[in-house]
Amino acid sequence: MPDYAQRLHSAIRRTQTPSLVGIDPRWDLLPQEIRDKASAGGGSQAEQHARGFEHFSLELLDIICDSVAVVKPQVAFFEQLGIPGLQALHRVMTRARELGLLVIADAKRGDIGSTAEAYAAGWLAGEDPGAAEWPADALTVNPYLGADTLQPFVDVARQRGAGIYVLVRTSNPGAAVFQDPRSEGHAIYEIVADRVCDLAAQTTPQGEDYGCVGAVVGATWPEQLQQLRERMPGVPFLVPGYGAQGGTSADTAGAFDADGLGAVINSSRGINFAWHTAGLQDEFGEDSWREAIAEATRRMRSDLAEHTPAGQLSIPRA
Amino acid sequence: MPDYAQRLHSAIRRTQTPSLVGIDPRWDLLPQEIRDKASAGGGSQAEQHARGFEHFSLELLDIICDSVAVVKPQVAFFEQLGIPGLQALHRVMTRARELGLLVIADAKRGDIGSTAEAYAAGWLAGEDPGAAEWPADALTVNPYLGADTLQPFVDVARQRGAGIYVLVRTSNPGAAVFQDPRSEGHAIYEIVADRVCDLAAQTTPQGEDYGCVGAVVGATWPEQLQQLRERMPGVPFLVPGYGAQGGTSADTAGAFDADGLGAVINSSRGINFAWHTAGLQDEFGEDSWREAIAEATRRMRSDLAEHTPAGQLSIPRA
Repeated sequence: MPDYAQRLHSAIRRTQTPSLVGIDPRWDLLPQEIRDKASAGGGSQAEQHARGFEHFSLELLDIICDSVAVVKPQVAFFEQLGIPGLQALHRVMTRARELGLLVIADAKRGDIGSTAEAYAAGWLAGEDPGAAEWPADALTVNPYLGADTLQPFVDVARQRGAGIYVLVRTSNPGAAVFQDPRSEGHAIYEIVADRVCDLAAQTTPQGEDYGCVGAVVGATWPEQLQQLRERMPGVPFLVPGYGAQGGTSADTAGAFDADGLGAVINSSRGINFAWHTAGLQDEFGEDSWREAIAEATRRMRSDLAEHTPAGQLSIPRA
Repeated sequence: MPDYAQRLHSAIRRTQTPSLVGIDPRWDLLPQEIRDKASAGGGSQAEQHARGFEHFSLELLDIICDSVAVVKPQVAFFEQLGIPGLQALHRVMTRARELGLLVIADAKRGDIGSTAEAYAAGWLAGEDPGAAEWPADALTVNPYLGADTLQPFVDVARQRGAGIYVLVRTSNPGAAVFQDPRSEGHAIYEIVADRVCDLAAQTTPQGEDYGCVGAVVGATWPEQLQQLRERMPGVPFLVPGYGAQGGTSADTAGAFDADGLGAVINSSRGINFAWHTAGLQDEFGEDSWREAIAEATRRMRSDLAEHTPAGQLSIPRA
């Protein structure tokens, strides 16, 4: 069975881009036509919003599925709507898998012992979407509880050809508060990084460069991103913070290896709600929201190809 | 509107115990009669297990609802079963609220900005169970992403009379790995503790002793528990690790204030599966699993009353 990093890199090579599209539906930002249709279906507010989230997310998948290899549904937005929201999430994840996309569930789960095993078993479907109730290829995981609490995720990931991305250095303004205190010369996020690196090494197949244990490192901290890439060879990166959060393509350049592999770069709002963004709102009105999403995706692909080693992906391999 | 700490302490005073019962259903440990009935209903394995989890959890609630004030469903076990599991969780939480129990959703959520807002809005129902899709009084929250990511939870908690419990020092064996590195003389968990303390202080009503921002501190680290109680006045504690994980009642004594308030002590496996535990398996067979749960709950109440300041709760106040 191909492991997660092999599946990921094969998908990135096929699409020639490390672009990762976040699926982050927000009711107030949805096109009016989708809100109207969702509301017309009746039911509770949560049911109406969930209907709108599903409709929008499925349209989004159709628009981007030939341009990118990986999508990242943000679980919080669906979970907030209770059961109808999670039913919508399930259908969106299932559809993404049917379209051949890799699905990273952004749920930031983490717990101890048998509880961590339950999250791992429930979310890490890996190669076979039917292997878990939630058909994700990979899951974001919070390390605060300890390295022992990551092990159950690693074990399930390895068995199923799935991956995890452990939060190392997050993209938010306050990330430094608990991640940067230094102990014996090392910041906490570096201590986490070293454990993640050990776990990735344990899962790296002979002859391969990457394991199935990845790291979340924000594009909003380009210096730390570059340092962590050097510190964590063999660890696939998930880089949030590009676009709406202020990170530029050049800020993400340090996340890649020389072949343009080893990282996926996420954009959520900048793609989902492209017709509201500074760069595109003059060109696209809400009536052409689909075209705006397609154009934003094209621009992201070009931007990353031009300013990062991901440009190597379009050069045929010897 | 009474805030979370007032509601919590009123419930603890009424039941005269800080005992908190975790709701942690595990298929392999359920009574055979419940597994048989759940399987007889047919459907997918997840549907069968979810049916068993719901049946068992509702019975558990009926057995303990007059003996304790607070329950803590472990979300992972339900989430693992996908939609049927989460439907079961929703009904269990709803029933617990109907029985007058306080419900702490043990979900260990945490994310940045608008995503944290979504988790907070979705889980923190607070005083009115209808105020959120998930009718929890309180939620466990992971701090790793930063103090700024706790604020949305604090804001919603305050608005709705809800509470949060931030992971400070967890009960697992490997807790020290990322929580104990010392920076400028302070362990990371102490740095987290100080921020939690500040947030609690902001939310403490005039004339009250506690805020709505609590801390998770494991009974398996009695020394740190005592130190943190002194360091964090005004912060309600949620103490896991009593019982099956090895913490004794004496180990939890340091979590309380002099009135026996300020902490809830959790037992999950020791109550849920009491007829499997060392202390009770000779007295109770599986046929008397209900009696075993009732007896384990009585023993926990007595044990905490005898060996901790919670004994003060049964003395009439002047």
